[in-house]
Amino acid sequence: MADEAAKLDDALRRQVDTVRRLKQEKASPEEVAEQVAKLLELKAQLGTDEGKHKFVLKTPKGTRDYNPKQMAIREKVFDIIISTFKRHGAEVIDTPVFELKETLTGKYGEDSKLIYDLKDQGGELLSLRYDLTVPFARYLAMNKITNIKRYHIAKVYRRDNPAMTRGRYREFYQCDFDIAGQFDPMIPDAECLKIVHEILSGLQIGDFLIKVNDRRILDGMFAVCGVPDSKFRIICSTVDKLDKATWEDVKSEMVGEKGLSPEAADRIGEYVRLHGGLGLIEQLLQDTKLSQNKLAREGLGDMKLLFEYLTLFGIADKISFDLSLARGLDYYTGVIYEAVLLQPQNAHREEPINVGSVAGGGRYDGLVGMFDPKGRKVPCVGVSIGIERIFSIMEQKVEASEEKIRTTETQVLVAAAQKKLLEERLKLISELWDSGIKAEMLYKKNPKLLNQLQYCEDTGIPLVAIVGEQELKDGVVKLRVVATREEVDVRRENLVEEIKRRTCQP
Amino acid sequence: MADEAAKLDDALRRQVDTVRRLKQEKASPEEVAEQVAKLLELKAQLGTDEGKHKFVLKTPKGTRDYNPKQMAIREKVFDIIISTFKRHGAEVIDTPVFELKETLTGKYGEDSKLIYDLKDQGGELLSLRYDLTVPFARYLAMNKITNIKRYHIAKVYRRDNPAMTRGRYREFYQCDFDIAGQFDPMIPDAECLKIVHEILSGLQIGDFLIKVNDRRILDGMFAVCGVPDSKFRIICSTVDKLDKATWEDVKSEMVGEKGLSPEAADRIGEYVRLHGGLGLIEQLLQDTKLSQNKLAREGLGDMKLLFEYLTLFGIADKISFDLSLARGLDYYTGVIYEAVLLQPQNAHREEPINVGSVAGGGRYDGLVGMFDPKGRKVPCVGVSIGIERIFSIMEQKVEASEEKIRTTETQVLVAAAQKKLLEERLKLISELWDSGIKAEMLYKKNPKLLNQLQYCEDTGIPLVAIVGEQELKDGVVKLRVVATREEVDVRRENLVEEIKRRTCQP
Repeated sequence: MADEAAKLDDALRRQVDTVRRLKQEKASPEEVAEQVAKLLELKAQLGTDEGKHKFVLKTPKGTRDYNPKQMAIREKVFDIIISTFKRHGAEVIDTPVFELKETLTGKYGEDSKLIYDLKDQGGELLSLRYDLTVPFARYLAMNKITNIKRYHIAKVYRRDNPAMTRGRYREFYQCDFDIAGQFDPMIPDAECLKIVHEILSGLQIGDFLIKVNDRRILDGMFAVCGVPDSKFRIICSTVDKLDKATWEDVKSEMVGEKGLSPEAADRIGEYVRLHGGLGLIEQLLQDTKLSQNKLAREGLGDMKLLFEYLTLFGIADKISFDLSLARGLDYYTGVIYEAVLLQPQNAHREEPINVGSVAGGGRYDGLVGMFDPKGRKVPCVGVSIGIERIFSIMEQKVEASEEKIRTTETQVLVAAAQKKLLEERLKLISELWDSGIKAEMLYKKNPKLLNQLQYCEDTGIPLVAIVGEQELKDGVVKLRVVATREEVDVRRENLVEEIKRRTCQP
Repeated sequence: MADEAAKLDDALRRQVDTVRRLKQEKASPEEVAEQVAKLLELKAQLGTDEGKHKFVLKTPKGTRDYNPKQMAIREKVFDIIISTFKRHGAEVIDTPVFELKETLTGKYGEDSKLIYDLKDQGGELLSLRYDLTVPFARYLAMNKITNIKRYHIAKVYRRDNPAMTRGRYREFYQCDFDIAGQFDPMIPDAECLKIVHEILSGLQIGDFLIKVNDRRILDGMFAVCGVPDSKFRIICSTVDKLDKATWEDVKSEMVGEKGLSPEAADRIGEYVRLHGGLGLIEQLLQDTKLSQNKLAREGLGDMKLLFEYLTLFGIADKISFDLSLARGLDYYTGVIYEAVLLQPQNAHREEPINVGSVAGGGRYDGLVGMFDPKGRKVPCVGVSIGIERIFSIMEQKVEASEEKIRTTETQVLVAAAQKKLLEERLKLISELWDSGIKAEMLYKKNPKLLNQLQYCEDTGIPLVAIVGEQELKDGVVKLRVVATREEVDVRRENLVEEIKRRTCQP
């Protein structure tokens, strides 16, 4: 309905423009009259009184509300993610939704154009955060922290083209886990991958694959393929498009837009089709060209170590060393990774189909140094879980299963069997609240018993505490089990205990 | 330190401006040289290399980060608030951090100037939400919801003058609970006050008082005091300042700025000094002037009903009917309230001192109708808990008590007794994680045992699982209790159970 109204409203605005233009252009009276008639029809459809209620009733483009059912799913997903982060000993921090504009400048390469700026209303120039990584680095530098393992769950903002049905929004959650500090190689890096594995397994949203690569391997590969140093970053951004575009398109961008020689592009093409495990690492360590490059050798050595640790963690079978993985952000310096969900394997295809990235991250050893006045570096590695796509999948799953999700935790409805018992209901519900019982009542002076019972059916409240004149005299409350319609009289002083017992509250 | 740097940076910017101005004004070379010298000194203090790292390392004005200790306190406060909302059967929703600018227009009266606008980067004009009430009303109208009880906890934004030591920020949390729907009078209103009472009692932050009034009583009072209809809202805003200003200042604003007659102001002055309970309501119902006003009579009748319900809830002693309570927002239509914390009563004063508002709300029956294309109304009443001041108080309390707050939940550190046991540690910790145990290890190949034990002392981890060569041969792990230094050998297959038993994890 809301979408319908927004479309109508758009149509209305366009029609207003058309009429205005025709008048300016001194079009024929017939032509103007025809367009005005259309305009009036649209207005009638919208029920718009001239000048009143003429605003659009919608959330901003690329954003959405969460209704109670969606929130119930969201909280379930967050529970799994947060308990994983806590299982790995992470602390939690929070930062403001906006940062000084200059804090974000020069951190995101080509994507900087997607940053939301605030209007200059006097005072500092501000921008909405684009991710949680740059604010984290700013936080570390500002507080001179050289050692922390933290998570941060919050919304970030990108003026991207939204594709909301596929879980792409302009306002979306990131769930970040990062380890900052000077440590022995690849131990924290391996833990980040273990965390992604635990979360995606815990969410039970189907099979997945975690692709890994290393910026040093990419840079070494670019060097031996004959890419000039100055073009590493832009060619890297182009390689990053391989998950959505074909090699032919990517090559033509490299050669056409980025000015790379076709030969260099072809050499890159040979490498980026490679993916595998320890075997591929060994093979590339023997590669006569690549193994001569110092950066690539370092990257491959660390990649080997990483796979040894992943094997000890028992998760190497879900990890693919993939030379086509590039990741767009400027700040990565070492290992990078991205988790994708796989659709059920199709018998006619050899490869599982990639339905989209749900987590990504990597090592960024230089970012904190960009904020430190003396350029002191704090090595960091982290992962970000992209939750919106997971929400979409979970929502579809719930809808398909027709599972009834409760959106409240109410244990008991305080009801009246006769009229004129409002005061008694208020007294009883107050006692229950004060004893920690989750209780509701209808906000009517004299509700019908049937309506009160129906409310429990609708909302899933399992128990009804019924006060009636006889029960009041007897010092009892009638406790009704909604599912079985069983009714028992419970002495008022035992009611709290009985409700706790029946709803398994400790 | 960060504040220090920000001050220096401000000074630097001002000094740059001074030098520029002097040059423009063609000041004497000596004068310019003197100011340039000052400028260079400031730059040296800041350690600013020309053109490098010259940004300010800070959060935007009026905002702050939360470090892990502050987050631990924040989560404790949220737990109490959320469990209260859930005890009253509330669902939860979420809305975007920004709204279409027009959604917020005309809802906040004089305070509209405090709204943060986003920069026009093409597309819709957006503003950051100013509270959670207007987005809630927009949500109800957009989804045609006429009946809901929901809570919403999120940050809101106001370009106000921050006073951060007293918990006043430009980005701050609101915890809102609202009941929408057509119900019998004052039942949901009374529940909102019960919720405020439960939350403030649960937080244990000292004595408090909840002031209540009604917009209809205020309007009736203005009418019988001779305030012209057109001035009701601006005089109401002025009355709202009584909690911070004296009556003399408020009166002089009424007469001077707002053009009210001194006689009318004096008549208002008689009323706004009144506060009390049921007795005062009865007295005003007998007031010859006020009782002739229809609005005031309605408001007083409902106020009487409200106090009856509050008495049934057992909380009337904390509620004060206070004719000076006005609340600034335009959208209230009926009962309004505000909770203040009281300092310990001073023997020399008759009245407890108000240290500030921590919750407020009221009835707004017209707001949803402002969004509905056909103007259909949905009566609403709600309360907003202002959490920042409560955080400040809790933080001070924790600091004063020297209580040690843990910022992680880690149950066990996986440690090595000798060198070359990294692989064994990785294998063991992976087993523990997969069994749901919260476990950490140091990210060193060969950490010293002493350092590993020290890490537990520092972070409060209660147990250490130590792998050593002998233990590996024997198929056991040495489990050490950090507090008592007790050590026992536990068979590997029993380790998970033993850790759960000792850390009371179900």
